[in-house]
Amino acid sequence: MDFTMFIGIAVAMVLMIYGMGLDKLGNFVDPQSFIIVIIGTIAALFAGFGVKAFKQLPKHMKLIMAKDRYNAKDCIAQIVEMAQIARKKGLLALEEESKKIEDPFFKQSLILIVDVPDASRIKEMLETELLYLDERHAKTVNFYETGEALAPAFGMIGTLIGLVNMLKSMSMDSGGSSTIGQDMSVALITTLYGVIMANIMFGPIVRRLKQRHDEEILYKNIIIEGVLAIQAGDNPKFLNEKLTSYLAHHERDDGDSGEGGEKAPKAKKGKKSKE
Amino acid sequence: MDFTMFIGIAVAMVLMIYGMGLDKLGNFVDPQSFIIVIIGTIAALFAGFGVKAFKQLPKHMKLIMAKDRYNAKDCIAQIVEMAQIARKKGLLALEEESKKIEDPFFKQSLILIVDVPDASRIKEMLETELLYLDERHAKTVNFYETGEALAPAFGMIGTLIGLVNMLKSMSMDSGGSSTIGQDMSVALITTLYGVIMANIMFGPIVRRLKQRHDEEILYKNIIIEGVLAIQAGDNPKFLNEKLTSYLAHHERDDGDSGEGGEKAPKAKKGKKSKE
Amino acid sequence: MDFTMFIGIAVAMVLMIYGMGLDKLGNFVDPQSFIIVIIGTIAALFAGFGVKAFKQLPKHMKLIMAKDRYNAKDCIAQIVEMAQIARKKGLLALEEESKKIEDPFFKQSLILIVDVPDASRIKEMLETELLYLDERHAKTVNFYETGEALAPAFGMIGTLIGLVNMLKSMSMDSGGSSTIGQDMSVALITTLYGVIMANIMFGPIVRRLKQRHDEEILYKNIIIEGVLAIQAGDNPKFLNEKLTSYLAHHERDDGDSGEGGEKAPKAKKGKKSKE
Amino acid sequence: MDFTMFIGIAVAMVLMIYGMGLDKLGNFVDPQSFIIVIIGTIAALFAGFGVKAFKQLPKHMKLIMAKDRYNAKDCIAQIVEMAQIARKKGLLALEEESKKIEDPFFKQSLILIVDVPDASRIKEMLETELLYLDERHAKTVNFYETGEALAPAFGMIGTLIGLVNMLKSMSMDSGGSSTIGQDMSVALITTLYGVIMANIMFGPIVRRLKQRHDEEILYKNIIIEGVLAIQAGDNPKFLNEKLTSYLAHHERDDGDSGEGGEKAPKAKKGKKSKE
Amino acid sequence: MDFTMFIGIAVAMVLMIYGMGLDKLGNFVDPQSFIIVIIGTIAALFAGFGVKAFKQLPKHMKLIMAKDRYNAKDCIAQIVEMAQIARKKGLLALEEESKKIEDPFFKQSLILIVDVPDASRIKEMLETELLYLDERHAKTVNFYETGEALAPAFGMIGTLIGLVNMLKSMSMDSGGSSTIGQDMSVALITTLYGVIMANIMFGPIVRRLKQRHDEEILYKNIIIEGVLAIQAGDNPKFLNEKLTSYLAHHERDDGDSGEGGEKAPKAKKGKKSKE
Repeated sequence: MDFTMFIGIAVAMVLMIYGMGLDKLGNFVDPQSFIIVIIGTIAALFAGFGVKAFKQLPKHMKLIMAKDRYNAKDCIAQIVEMAQIARKKGLLALEEESKKIEDPFFKQSLILIVDVPDASRIKEMLETELLYLDERHAKTVNFYETGEALAPAFGMIGTLIGLVNMLKSMSMDSGGSSTIGQDMSVALITTLYGVIMANIMFGPIVRRLKQRHDEEILYKNIIIEGVLAIQAGDNPKFLNEKLTSYLAHHERDDGDSGEGGEKAPKAKKGKKSKE
Repeated sequence: MDFTMFIGIAVAMVLMIYGMGLDKLGNFVDPQSFIIVIIGTIAALFAGFGVKAFKQLPKHMKLIMAKDRYNAKDCIAQIVEMAQIARKKGLLALEEESKKIEDPFFKQSLILIVDVPDASRIKEMLETELLYLDERHAKTVNFYETGEALAPAFGMIGTLIGLVNMLKSMSMDSGGSSTIGQDMSVALITTLYGVIMANIMFGPIVRRLKQRHDEEILYKNIIIEGVLAIQAGDNPKFLNEKLTSYLAHHERDDGDSGEGGEKAPKAKKGKKSKE
Repeated sequence: MDFTMFIGIAVAMVLMIYGMGLDKLGNFVDPQSFIIVIIGTIAALFAGFGVKAFKQLPKHMKLIMAKDRYNAKDCIAQIVEMAQIARKKGLLALEEESKKIEDPFFKQSLILIVDVPDASRIKEMLETELLYLDERHAKTVNFYETGEALAPAFGMIGTLIGLVNMLKSMSMDSGGSSTIGQDMSVALITTLYGVIMANIMFGPIVRRLKQRHDEEILYKNIIIEGVLAIQAGDNPKFLNEKLTSYLAHHERDDGDSGEGGEKAPKAKKGKKSKE
Repeated sequence: MDFTMFIGIAVAMVLMIYGMGLDKLGNFVDPQSFIIVIIGTIAALFAGFGVKAFKQLPKHMKLIMAKDRYNAKDCIAQIVEMAQIARKKGLLALEEESKKIEDPFFKQSLILIVDVPDASRIKEMLETELLYLDERHAKTVNFYETGEALAPAFGMIGTLIGLVNMLKSMSMDSGGSSTIGQDMSVALITTLYGVIMANIMFGPIVRRLKQRHDEEILYKNIIIEGVLAIQAGDNPKFLNEKLTSYLAHHERDDGDSGEGGEKAPKAKKGKKSKE
Repeated sequence: MDFTMFIGIAVAMVLMIYGMGLDKLGNFVDPQSFIIVIIGTIAALFAGFGVKAFKQLPKHMKLIMAKDRYNAKDCIAQIVEMAQIARKKGLLALEEESKKIEDPFFKQSLILIVDVPDASRIKEMLETELLYLDERHAKTVNFYETGEALAPAFGMIGTLIGLVNMLKSMSMDSGGSSTIGQDMSVALITTLYGVIMANIMFGPIVRRLKQRHDEEILYKNIIIEGVLAIQAGDNPKFLNEKLTSYLAHHERDDGDSGEGGEKAPKAKKGKKSKE
């Protein structure tokens, strides 16, 4: 499991508390302000997106914590293995192999290349699915980005409400200016809550979901490229090198790391095996 | 009917009132400020967009409340049904069937595949209609987005007007500083009104209209894909699977949900029925 | 003539005056502040865009007031009429007809289909013209958008100048604090002027020009599509339906409006006439 | 030479001085603040872009002042002249003519059509050059846009520094509040400097460079289109009309301006000369 | 090595210290504020991006300091040299030559043209690698851009915390107003830290990484174009001119610089050598 997001949030929260001063923590606790910012942001999100978006919250949290859910390197290894099986036993053997695979997109793609002989049709089907996946993910990220924008807005609303109340009471009783500091500090707390929520909560969620999305898209692109190459009967070694070129150099781990730094896939092997 | 937007707005408004304090609600009522922000925003929207945009307001509210207007799953079921009818009784039978369909785009598309034999021409006609729909919707959303930006601007204008008046009066009679709190609170109310309008009213409308737009585009894309497949004589089962791949996994409900989690459309059936 | 923009601006201005209070209008008149914001914005626009942009100002105002300059529905009717003439009397008859047409783009397009037999060449020529039109319009809109951004900036510059002068004088003579309110109110007026100019003047102009641009592009696209269909000898009824699909449903007015709501162009007629 | 940018900047500066008040100009002179904003912005630009970007400053100023460097109308005239020469004396005659042309891109293009018979290859070469030109210009504009964003940031940094120093000294000696106005005015001056630099200096430079870029791209696109038409042996009159359609109607100056308003290129002549 | 970024940052920092005043530097040192801004930004970046992003920090610093890592002009010279060798000794000779080349992408590309005869396949492979490189770099830049946005946000959080504490203490003991200046100055320091970090640290890093990215993409595009031309057997002189057209005119250094200003690649030589 990948708890780094929660660790980062926890460290930032502890830091905030250190900054506030342990003895002055009481200055920063104001349930009413908390309710305005939290519930206000949630109500405005609900008004804008409806129930559906909230139902998927647990799924998103699970996704963020899922370490290596979309591990491109393992996926390449599996594809190369499938390519070797297809070479030895024929494409039909993949139907049996596909049952061992957990990822539904990989499984579906393997079954497709066994069943549908037309490569361009398979490509179109899988890429259409990816396209709609992309749009759905963009909407999901948009939900949290809206939260990132709404939290400071509700913080500001809370502060304005506090300021108006303070200024009104100030004018009524002239001696009221003795509590002006206290009142203003309470007014400012909602802004503080809003900025903290946006930067320590919504911000990291947005970035993590984008990261997972990028991983999933890369992962599924590798699968599409891979299964089509398997169907075309490409050489497994050459396929390995081709798919590896999708990764950053520091993510690749070829056996001979003597050259250091950035290494290029060795196209030569590919040539030999093609002969 | 889908009232979730109005429920969300109502909850947020109740929350604002709770935050203001029931006994201090009078502090936040200032008809003049209200008029400046509301009428100012409307006047500036009118200056920028003319009468036409306002005439469509009721239509947009109706659209936001229309639950399941563009239900992709039902649409797929209908398309598959049409495909089965076309297979049994021939394409011409769809002319009769199309009369039962309420959605004008679906009806038009069905009539088109009966009448026009050239698939690429149909595709071009329907996609052109979608393209211009897309542009018109973008302009509609832009209307409310402009409102979202104008409301806080008029809030700021109101506050500046209030501040200038307050500061002027302050300098004239030196004893005027006794009402400075009252005056400033009134000045700040317009900013509060503007921020609330932007985040609790215009914001949710913008998001809902975008959501409805996405639903409509997906819905109509499925129809285009579907009717062309019917005309091409595609197998209904295969068509069902193909169109289902447009949906998120949690929106699909195949009979055998034993695998849990994300499931892929079963391409195998498609193959069998193709034989 | 379409004066809705000026009506909207006037209403907003009256509202501002109402907000300021008729008896306190004097508080908001400060010629020096006015000069800084207005002339400053103009000077900075001049520095950024040169003389040419200003020369076109009257043309832009005229364009904004020109009601129905680009009326797509009338244009479709005219195209259909031309298509009928072309069918009856042949393409060459359009040369005579084109003289009655006012719009130069429509006239030019008609002459082109008479003179140039190569449809793809005509399409390329007309679309190139549209492309450069699009770029020129974007630059025009950019001029007013820059004004929208510069006005509040010069408002802020004026306020900063006022504040610095106020603070300096305050420190010199300790009794100077009696005019602090007056001085600050004057400093704030420039910000108010800048925000008003941006939101009530430049903003609506930007939106109107964009609206006119969209209308013109739609109008000219319909002409391009239409004249090419005339040259190809398309059936006028079918052409009418095809071009009507470019419009929003509420803009179309077919005879049989019994279905209510959104209606689709009837493709059937198109088929019949094709037989 | 085109000094309009400098005239605009000068007018805006004079206006600022008028706004400050000639007798109070001393209030706005603070060398230390000036150094923080100016040198700070330059240092941050240097940190971000290195030496190279600064070396091109004189070139950019020269470009901004170069009036009619990319005069599309003159260019069209020259191209039409070349087309006539090519028609009379053959393509090879252009080799001699090209020596008279100053603009290197035009000269190169003319030599290319003489030397390379493959039109698609010429097009690809010239368009690739334009593509990379586009990217290099975008980077140049980005340099000044960064300056536009950095100047107010350094203004704010200077103000924060001034405020911290003021507040610190205030707490040390209780009698220090007598200079609070003076200190704050100095603190605000850096913000004023930053906003002025961004809006009166960097802003106009950004807009002018974009304008010159647009002119250059249009100019070079006309050349590419023109020389390819010369090579293809297009009729000079027809070519003139085709290239003129790239310009706005008010930039064209046909002899018969009787129609007024927007006029379309007369395609008929083109037809005649084609016969 | 290219230390210009660090020189720029150092100059800006010295300037800040000069602005603060050497005798008042103590006013600007507050370890607690420093920790809130620095650690807060790092914690939020960690929450958003995880460990991986931080591991690559040294690599990015090295990249920024690597002068001429992607020197397009040297690269063109090398490609032309390779083209000459390929012409004299045949394509296979490049296999030996490729061992002398340090850049792995160049080496890989050379081996590919020796091994794979299908040019379109090579192009696809190399361009796919470039595409994914582009995406990975965009993510890297996004990391520092997020830092640029987070630093001022944490500065603001620190200031709000300071203000709340100050205002609370103010209300408790009425005599506490004597330290209000000191307290507020401390509160403002975090904002100052945040703005400085964003503009003097993260900003330049973002710009440098983008610059290096542009250099790398240009460099690799030249290699792709170059090796494909070598495989196609293009004339080395012609190739030199073609690749040089990718560069800005001031970056090219042809022997005959008599014309001054901008010079065009001489296409004529290319023609001669083609004959």
